[in-house]
Amino acid sequence: MTFASPITDRWFEDYVPGAVHEFGSITVEEDEVIAFAKRYDPQDFHTNPVAAKDTIFGGLIASGWQTCGLMMRLYAEHYLTKCASLASPGVDELRWVRPVRPGDSLSVRVTIENAVASKSKPDRGVVTSFIEVLNHKAETVLSMRAINMIARRHPG
Amino acid sequence: MTFASPITDRWFEDYVPGAVHEFGSITVEEDEVIAFAKRYDPQDFHTNPVAAKDTIFGGLIASGWQTCGLMMRLYAEHYLTKCASLASPGVDELRWVRPVRPGDSLSVRVTIENAVASKSKPDRGVVTSFIEVLNHKAETVLSMRAINMIARRHPG
Repeated sequence: MTFASPITDRWFEDYVPGAVHEFGSITVEEDEVIAFAKRYDPQDFHTNPVAAKDTIFGGLIASGWQTCGLMMRLYAEHYLTKCASLASPGVDELRWVRPVRPGDSLSVRVTIENAVASKSKPDRGVVTSFIEVLNHKAETVLSMRAINMIARRHPG
Repeated sequence: MTFASPITDRWFEDYVPGAVHEFGSITVEEDEVIAFAKRYDPQDFHTNPVAAKDTIFGGLIASGWQTCGLMMRLYAEHYLTKCASLASPGVDELRWVRPVRPGDSLSVRVTIENAVASKSKPDRGVVTSFIEVLNHKAETVLSMRAINMIARRHPG
């Protein structure tokens, strides 16, 4: 499904519950996996290809937080409005379902679950999006529910 | 509170429900905020100090995912066992409570909520940790519940 409006003119009203949007992809590079993990998630299965072989993953995997970052890159470039995104209060039920490995290519599928206009602030609404990150074998590697406050094109 | 065991010899049994552990800190650098966001969260209030002034944040703020990464750095260095961490299925109720800005110094407070031995796999248990990230003014900027599978020192 495609949005009726380009990302530079996309507002609360354009997020229609039930719509499914798919976009991507982005490739996971080993150098980046290691560099990210050395700074943000220093555990052997993220930073050390040799030591990683002796873990339950049997080799290097990306930090779950890096997978979130790669998801966010695609989400910001293809889905989230560039003119009306106010803030995100947070995320629910974040799950790292399968390991992400160097060489994997990730894409994103978003299902709009809910879009509720604010009662107290008529210029905005809250959009709830169920996000799945898929690898190149179409396996889900990550899922979460994201909350975004989006400005309305036509304030109520 | 401090653990009875060092991080290199810390097992499921060492995570005692009710215990509160505090550690850190780490400083948020403007260059890193911008570099992280250009790759993982390209939105004006994360990447462009000038354009950020015209947003509801009034200036540059860190990507929420970078704040998660900085939390994870401290969590891996001070809290999570280096010998018995098997995997993390995910996180619940992740909330970005306040903006994180360049110059902020972040620390972490973890309250162990639950530690349940696995019934099906006697070599491990599941630890649930409530994590708060605090800035240098002792304000909460992020909270979440994290789930970790940890190997047992004495398998049941």
